[in-house]
Formats: sequence, structure tokens, C-alpha cells
Amino acid sequence: MNREQLFENIKRKQSFLCVGLDTDIKKIPHFLLEEEDPIFAFNKAIIDATADLCIAYKPNLAFYECMGVKGWLAFEKTINYIKDNYSDQLVIADAKRGDIGNTSAMYARSFFEEGRVDAVTVAPYMGEDSVKPFLGYENKWVILLALTSNKGSHDFQLTTDPQGERLFEKVLRKSQEWADADQLMYVVGATQGKAFEDIRKIAPHHFLLVPGVGAQGGSLEEVCKYGMNSQCGLIVNSSRGIIYADNTQGFADAARQSSQNLQQQMSVLLQKNSLI
Amino acid sequence: MNREQLFENIKRKQSFLCVGLDTDIKKIPHFLLEEEDPIFAFNKAIIDATADLCIAYKPNLAFYECMGVKGWLAFEKTINYIKDNYSDQLVIADAKRGDIGNTSAMYARSFFEEGRVDAVTVAPYMGEDSVKPFLGYENKWVILLALTSNKGSHDFQLTTDPQGERLFEKVLRKSQEWADADQLMYVVGATQGKAFEDIRKIAPHHFLLVPGVGAQGGSLEEVCKYGMNSQCGLIVNSSRGIIYADNTQGFADAARQSSQNLQQQMSVLLQKNSLI
Repeated sequence: MNREQLFENIKRKQSFLCVGLDTDIKKIPHFLLEEEDPIFAFNKAIIDATADLCIAYKPNLAFYECMGVKGWLAFEKTINYIKDNYSDQLVIADAKRGDIGNTSAMYARSFFEEGRVDAVTVAPYMGEDSVKPFLGYENKWVILLALTSNKGSHDFQLTTDPQGERLFEKVLRKSQEWADADQLMYVVGATQGKAFEDIRKIAPHHFLLVPGVGAQGGSLEEVCKYGMNSQCGLIVNSSRGIIYADNTQGFADAARQSSQNLQQQMSVLLQKNSLI
Repeated sequence: MNREQLFENIKRKQSFLCVGLDTDIKKIPHFLLEEEDPIFAFNKAIIDATADLCIAYKPNLAFYECMGVKGWLAFEKTINYIKDNYSDQLVIADAKRGDIGNTSAMYARSFFEEGRVDAVTVAPYMGEDSVKPFLGYENKWVILLALTSNKGSHDFQLTTDPQGERLFEKVLRKSQEWADADQLMYVVGATQGKAFEDIRKIAPHHFLLVPGVGAQGGSLEEVCKYGMNSQCGLIVNSSRGIIYADNTQGFADAARQSSQNLQQQMSVLLQKNSLI
């Protein structure tokens, strides 16, 4: 999926919502445990209930890996289910990978050639040759960690150099030497408020993947105030607030309701910024 | 495995060699492709041929993930084979993970509770709460990326703050507030030469996992000159130079020969430093 298609989907659905499929076997409704593959059964129900309200899905690999082979199978089935039934969805593997060149190349192959994901989150610490192997796949995306939503983001990401440039700003600036806004997005936590203004100075055109609305306490209004650009430029993720909105038989309806609440707020914000 | 046991193994085997099991189906001897699980068959042969010469094995997850479920099975079988047959080996999952707290906790569970690995490599970019969930498992280790072996290590890891502290030095200093040398090791590339001297000023007692000898061009002598401490403090990894030393029927013998060459150099260096 390219940038224009992504913006078209946002306008058509009046939504820039990404549903985070951080599916934990310990948190899904008990009656699903009787299913042959409870994780996939849960994901399928969530996807069917939300697909018209969101433009992306983001399974976090950790939640699948911790179940070993079973988890890996559920992950593959989930990706294939989305791609086969809702081909307009951007599928983001939240993997936060990054290794020396030949190893990053293996990860890239795994996600973009063998797998059917559209975008992978990548950690920048190891620099250019750890990121480059993920680039150069047509219509596929690298989403580089810039300023994350967690408390620990302050430990290293805010470190300044003698010229006053913070590490996350250096990541934004430096990575633009490797690829442009047609291949690269950035992770910026919804909890970072006004920092979006600084980010837009360095990366005015890039899409930002924004976790941290909901359970982590970020504000959608603030994110849009400082982060929205002329193509929206935002993909706002919610995981726990949607998928665990309820854990009875009505879990999928509750997930739909939570998604719709966010979508309606998003629609208003898109109108306010004259994008729809 | 604790720090004293690790040092005992090093003295007994006169080796601080780690064999990197970066097993790529495209590079293993062709005749193995007839096996039911070629990756595991290859690993098993390499392990049996080298176990008396090394003190650790380090499968890099990328090489297994890129094969999907099959790769995951081969990874689990490899770990179990080492643990069942060579229980004195430190098993390092080279995963370079790191995510927000609840997600890092999933990874930690996956490696340390469901899996049988002793140590996991972790990326520091997201800070304290991304690393902490991996700590606090008895006799398990976090190996934090500090100064990596690749060219891209210069992009961000060498960034200085106004006091002249480089990012990798901040990672070394800051992370010691979270855990001590009994739970924490650092990745430092063999290609970094004299930087080992600076690292030992900040982390005199920690074990360092050192990739980059061999294919990447690092020098074992230099690493030991600047990096060895009173408990050796080094685990030097070689992957491609050992496991792909030959790709005929004699591949395991060749892997043994390469390992032995390194072990003999290590023995001399341990003697020179009066550790054996």
C-alpha cells in the first residue's frame, strides 16, 4: 500500500484508527478457550467487528511468540485472514527488530517476502545498516521508533548533543538520508503531547504511528492538534481499550463500540482540519 | 547459570567461545535437505562437534523466524537439545527485543519461563521499563546492546551529550541502576578495538558478549588486551567462521577445527592473563 492509498482509505472511512491485536490468552473470554485456535478465533471476531471502522491492524509479535509454535500459527492465520478478506487494511507487524545487516535482511525477508505484512516497526539503535535491509520493498514500510509512549523513553531518547539536538530528533533527521516519506514512518507515543510540534518541523510529511491513546493515557485531541498534516499523517493505535473492552459473549460488539467511539472522534478531527 | 559457574566453565574448558547458530537453510550442506528437519540436523551436528570447545551457544532468532513455524520448531528443538545434553552451556537467544513494559514482560516469559534460554539480548532504545521485565529471573541474564559491531553503530551510539558522554556510555552507566554484573551483560563488537578500554572504566566487572571476530573483521587479541578482566569477562562469538567453515560431508569436522583454532588462541590469552 502506498501513501496515497493510505490517505484515500482514511478519507473514505473517516478514520485513522489502527486496532492493536495484542492478544493474550489469559485475557480473552473464557468460552473461546474451547476453540481449536482460541487466539485466531478471538482475532477473527475482533477483525470482523471493526474492519469498516479502522484502516490498519497491528499485531505485536511478543504476544504470539510467547506461545511458541501455536502462537506463530495464530499470527500467520491472522495476517492471512486480514489480507484475504480486508485487502484495504495496512497490516503492521509490531516487531521492533533491528540487527546487523545480514540479520536484518533475514527479518525483512521473513515479513515482506514470506509473510504478507505491509509494515514493520524497527528499532534504530544499531543505525543505518540495521534499517536499510527493510527498505526498498515496493509499497512496504519501515516504521522506525522515534519517541515512544513509555516512561523509559526519557532515559535515552531525550539525550541532547552539544548542539541541543535530542536523540529522537537525530533519528528523524538521519533516517531521512536513507528513505523518504513514501517508505518510512515513525513511532511517536500519544503521551508525548507538544513534542509532536517539534517532530513535524523535522518530518512534516511522514506518517506517524501513534500508540498510547487509551490504556497509556495519551490524548487524541492533542495528538491531532500538534501532529496532523495535510494527508492526515497519523495512524493512531488502540489495543487494550478496544480488544478487551468486554470479556463476555459480547466482546466483539464491545470492541466495535470502542472503535466506533474513536472513529467518530477522528471523523470530527478530520473535518476540523478540512481533510474530509 | 550464575557468574561464578560461567567463570568455572571458562577455566575448565580454557575457552570463552560462543558458537553462533545463525543457521540459514540456503547455506547448509545440500545433503542435509533430505532430513526431516534440516536446520535441527545441522545444529545438532555442529553442537556435538563443538560442545567441549565452547561455553555458550547463541542462535539468532532472525534465522529461525524467517522460516515461520518450521523455524520456530527447529529453534525450540535446538535449545532443548543443548539443555538436555550439554547442561553446562550458556544458551543465549539473540533476539534484540525491547518494548513497552507489558510487552517486554511477554517476551521475558516466552524466553525464560516457557523457553529454556539463559540469556536474551535486549535493545536499550526504549529505556528502563523496556529492560526491567527481563531482569529478576534467578540465574538468567539480560545482554544489553551497548556498542555493536556493525558500521551503523556510529550513527547513534557514538552521539555525545554536552558533558562528552557518548550514548553507549550512558547505556552502560544508566543500566547499572537497574541491575548489577550478576544479571546484566553488554554487547560490544570486536571491531571496536580501544573502546573496550573506555567500557571497562564504566563496567569493570560485567561480562561482555563480543560478536564480530571472523567474518566481521574484529581481532581476538585486541579484544582481550583491552577487555579482559579478572573473571575473563568476555564471551567471544563466532558464527559464520565456524558453522560454514565447510559445506561438504565434513562440515562438522571443519566447524570443530575452526572452534579449536579459536579455543587454542583463547587458552593462550587466558594463560597470559594468569586466569588459568
